[in-house]
Amino acid sequence: MKSGDEALLTDLYQLTMLQAYYDEGLRGRAVFELFVRRLPPGRGFLLLAGIEQALDYLEGLRFEPAELDWLRESGRFRADFVDWLADFRFTGTVSAMREGSVFFANEPVLRVEAPIAQAQFVESRLINLVNYATMVATKAARCRFAAPSRLLVDFGLRRAHGAEAGLLAARAAYLAGFDGTATVLAGQRFGIPLFGTMAHSYIEAHEHESDAFARFAASQPGNVTLLIDTYDTEEGARRVVALAPALHARGIRIAAVRLDSGDLDAHARAVRRILDEGGLREVHIFASGNLDEWQIARLLASGAPIDGFGVGTHLSTSVDAPFLDMVYKLQAYDGRPRRKRSEGKATWPGAKQVWRLHTPGGGVAGDLVALREEAPPPGDARALLQVAMDGGRRLAPPEALAALRQHAAAELDRLPAALRAADGADPGLHWPVRISPALQALAEELDRGRH
Amino acid sequence: MKSGDEALLTDLYQLTMLQAYYDEGLRGRAVFELFVRRLPPGRGFLLLAGIEQALDYLEGLRFEPAELDWLRESGRFRADFVDWLADFRFTGTVSAMREGSVFFANEPVLRVEAPIAQAQFVESRLINLVNYATMVATKAARCRFAAPSRLLVDFGLRRAHGAEAGLLAARAAYLAGFDGTATVLAGQRFGIPLFGTMAHSYIEAHEHESDAFARFAASQPGNVTLLIDTYDTEEGARRVVALAPALHARGIRIAAVRLDSGDLDAHARAVRRILDEGGLREVHIFASGNLDEWQIARLLASGAPIDGFGVGTHLSTSVDAPFLDMVYKLQAYDGRPRRKRSEGKATWPGAKQVWRLHTPGGGVAGDLVALREEAPPPGDARALLQVAMDGGRRLAPPEALAALRQHAAAELDRLPAALRAADGADPGLHWPVRISPALQALAEELDRGRH
Repeated sequence: MKSGDEALLTDLYQLTMLQAYYDEGLRGRAVFELFVRRLPPGRGFLLLAGIEQALDYLEGLRFEPAELDWLRESGRFRADFVDWLADFRFTGTVSAMREGSVFFANEPVLRVEAPIAQAQFVESRLINLVNYATMVATKAARCRFAAPSRLLVDFGLRRAHGAEAGLLAARAAYLAGFDGTATVLAGQRFGIPLFGTMAHSYIEAHEHESDAFARFAASQPGNVTLLIDTYDTEEGARRVVALAPALHARGIRIAAVRLDSGDLDAHARAVRRILDEGGLREVHIFASGNLDEWQIARLLASGAPIDGFGVGTHLSTSVDAPFLDMVYKLQAYDGRPRRKRSEGKATWPGAKQVWRLHTPGGGVAGDLVALREEAPPPGDARALLQVAMDGGRRLAPPEALAALRQHAAAELDRLPAALRAADGADPGLHWPVRISPALQALAEELDRGRH
Repeated sequence: MKSGDEALLTDLYQLTMLQAYYDEGLRGRAVFELFVRRLPPGRGFLLLAGIEQALDYLEGLRFEPAELDWLRESGRFRADFVDWLADFRFTGTVSAMREGSVFFANEPVLRVEAPIAQAQFVESRLINLVNYATMVATKAARCRFAAPSRLLVDFGLRRAHGAEAGLLAARAAYLAGFDGTATVLAGQRFGIPLFGTMAHSYIEAHEHESDAFARFAASQPGNVTLLIDTYDTEEGARRVVALAPALHARGIRIAAVRLDSGDLDAHARAVRRILDEGGLREVHIFASGNLDEWQIARLLASGAPIDGFGVGTHLSTSVDAPFLDMVYKLQAYDGRPRRKRSEGKATWPGAKQVWRLHTPGGGVAGDLVALREEAPPPGDARALLQVAMDGGRRLAPPEALAALRQHAAAELDRLPAALRAADGADPGLHWPVRISPALQALAEELDRGRH
C-alpha cells in the first residue's frame, strides 16, 4: 500500500480552511512552530528526528491530477478552488533544529513561515512525521544509555504501526546510537547496517536442530549467529559446541548465539559457561524478546553476560509513551504575534529562537526561548533553529545520517545523568529552559488585548 | 516517503533464511499461522482487520530490478541466489477469517500454505499489517461500545506512526463502526466518509472570532461546524448565537460547534444552554481533545450533552495497548506438524480450523480450535477460516468495506456485555475457546518426541 507522498494525506479541515483562505483572499504570511507541550512521564529529554522527511515532504508537495479529480468530484469544494490547487506549492522558509539535537518542552524544533494557506496546510503531515521519529529516537537513546557498550539492533518492523513506521523507526534508532536494524529496506534506503540471522521456524523445518545450525552456517558462512532456544536453550548451546570443530575445519567461525525466551539472565550465564568450557570464548551472546530500557539495564546491572540486544516492539511503538504531545501552532500572522489561549493549551506567541547556553567550562547551563528579534543572550550561546529551506527549497543537500548520528552522540554526551535514567527526572531541575522576559511580556500583552 | 510495496520491507533474517532454503533445496510445503498468543490486559476481545492489505501484499510480492541490484551489491548474498529471486512470487494458498470477525487468543486468523521459502518470507509484513489494523479496529469497537449512538470520527492521523498507520487506522476504525475519518486520503482510497472543519489557527488568523466564523460559513455553507474554544468557550457559543440569524438569512445552517479543551462535560452543558436559549436547539455539540473509551463513557454516563466525538491519538496509537502479541508460526512442514516449545512461547501444532459454536437460540457458545482434518463439531458450528487465495491468486475480488463493516457490527452485537466493557473481562469466562482433544493429543505427542 503506497502512501506518504500524497497531498491528500492530510486532515479534511486543512482543505476546508484552504478553501476559506482562498475565498477570503487571506494571503498574509504566517509563522507556525512545531513543538512539544510537555514531555511524557519519565522522559528526561527528547531527541529530535524526522526533520529530513519533513523537508522532503514540503519540497515535494503538490496535488496530482488524480487527486484534483477526486476533490472535484467529491462535491465538497468549488471548481475554481480545485483549479487553483493545481499550482499549489510550498514556497516558504523553514528553520529547524538539527536532527539529533536534544530538546525540551515549549522549544520550537521547526518553524514554518509562508503564506497562511501553505503554512497551515502542512500541519498534519509535519506532526505525523516528526512526532513519531522523535519518539523512537528518544526511546532508542534511552536504550543506549542502558547499554552504553553493547550491540543494539532495531528488531521493530513487525510490530511497528505499518510500513513507514518500520522505516522511520530504523532510521531514528540508528540516529540515536543503535548499531543497526533488521529492516532491509532501511538498509537500502538509508545505508543503515543490517543484522539478522534465522527464526525458530527455520530450526523447526529441519529434523534436527544441529542440522539446521550446520546448514545455515554453510549458507551464510560470514554471518553465523545461531538461534538456540527453539527446544532447550542449554542443549542448543551444547550442540553449538559440538558443531564448532567441523565448522572451523571448513573455515567457518560461529559469531554468536541468540536467546529469545525464558529467563535471559540465567540462560545467558549457563550458555556462557557451556560456550567457554567448549572453547568458544569468542562466541558472543545476543538476546532478544520483549526487551526495553528497563530490562536491559536490569540484565546488565545483574551482570548477565550478554553482548548485544535486539529491541523490537518496545522501540518501534515506544510502548510506555506511544505519542508525544507535539503540536504545530500559529504564532504570528501578517507580522502580528498570535496566542492560542484554550484552557491548558496556551502557547508562547511570536516567532521564536531557542538559545543553548553554555558554561565557561563547555557544559550546558540550560536553554533560553526568546523572540527571534531579541539580541543573542550574553556569553556562550548557540542558536538552535537554523534556516533549512527558503523559497520552498532546501539550502543544502540532506546531511549524511552518519554526521547526524555523531551530532546526536555529542548531544547525548552532554545530558546530566539524572535525565539519562530510565526513570528520567523532570528536566526542569537539571536543564532549565527559561522564557525570555520579552516573550513573557508579549504573552501578557496579548492576553490583556484578548477579544 | 513511499514504502509498503517493496519486497525489501522485511527483516534481514527472512533473506538469509531464504538463501539457506535455496541452498539446501528445501522445497517442502509449510503451514504457517498468524495468531495472537494472549490479549492485552483489559481487552475482552479482538476485532480482525488488515486482511485485505495482507492479501494485496501476497499477490503483489516481487523483487524489483533495483532491489535485486542492491542485494547483489550488498555482498551478503550469492549471485545465483539473487538471480533466483527475480522470479520469486507467492504461489501459496491462504485461508483467513473475514475482516470484522471477533476472535481470541490462540485462534489462527490467517493460514499460509506454500513452499517454505515463500511461506516464511512473508512473515514480517503480514504481522506488520494485521497486528496494527486489528489493534485499532479493536480500540475503535471499544469506543463504539462506549458511545453506541453518537457520531464517532477518527482524528488520529497526526499522531499515528507514519503515513500508512494513519490510513490503516482510518479504515480499521470505520470497519469497526466509526462514522468516518478526518484523513482525506482514506476517503479517497477506501470511500470512507470524511469529517472536519477548522483549526484554532484559522480562528486566530482573523482579528475577531466572529469574523472567522462568518467567513468560514460562507466558504463551506454545507459543512458549518464552528470551533468555539480558541479564546473562551462560552463566549464562543454566544457569538455563534449572535451570528446565526445573519447566516440563516443567507440560507446557511450551522450544523455543530466543536469543543476541544477544558472540562468538556461542564462546557458542553453551558454551551448547550446558550445554544438552546439562543434558539439553536438543532445545533450539535461535537467534542475532541485526548479522548478515549473511558473518557467517552464517563462523559456520557454523567449526561454531558455531547452528540459526537473526535478520537485521535488514543485511537491511532491504541495508547493503552500499542501492540498485540501477534505472531506467525510454522505449524507443519512437509505434511508433518511442528511445535515451537520455547519457554512461555509454545504453540499449538498443525494446520488448524476455528469453529464458532452456536447455541440453539442463535447465541454463541464459544469457539473450538481443532485440527483441520477433524470432523466438524456437532451442532450449529461455523468454520471461521475460509480459503481466500489459491495458487497465489485471490479467489474473489476484495469485499466492499461496507459489507465488512456490517459483518463487524453483527459480530460485535453478539459479544457478551462483560467483554464489551472498557475494563474488559477475561474472555475465558464469557466466550470459552476450547482446544480439541485431538489437537491436545498431537501437542503432547510432539513434546514426547522432542529432540
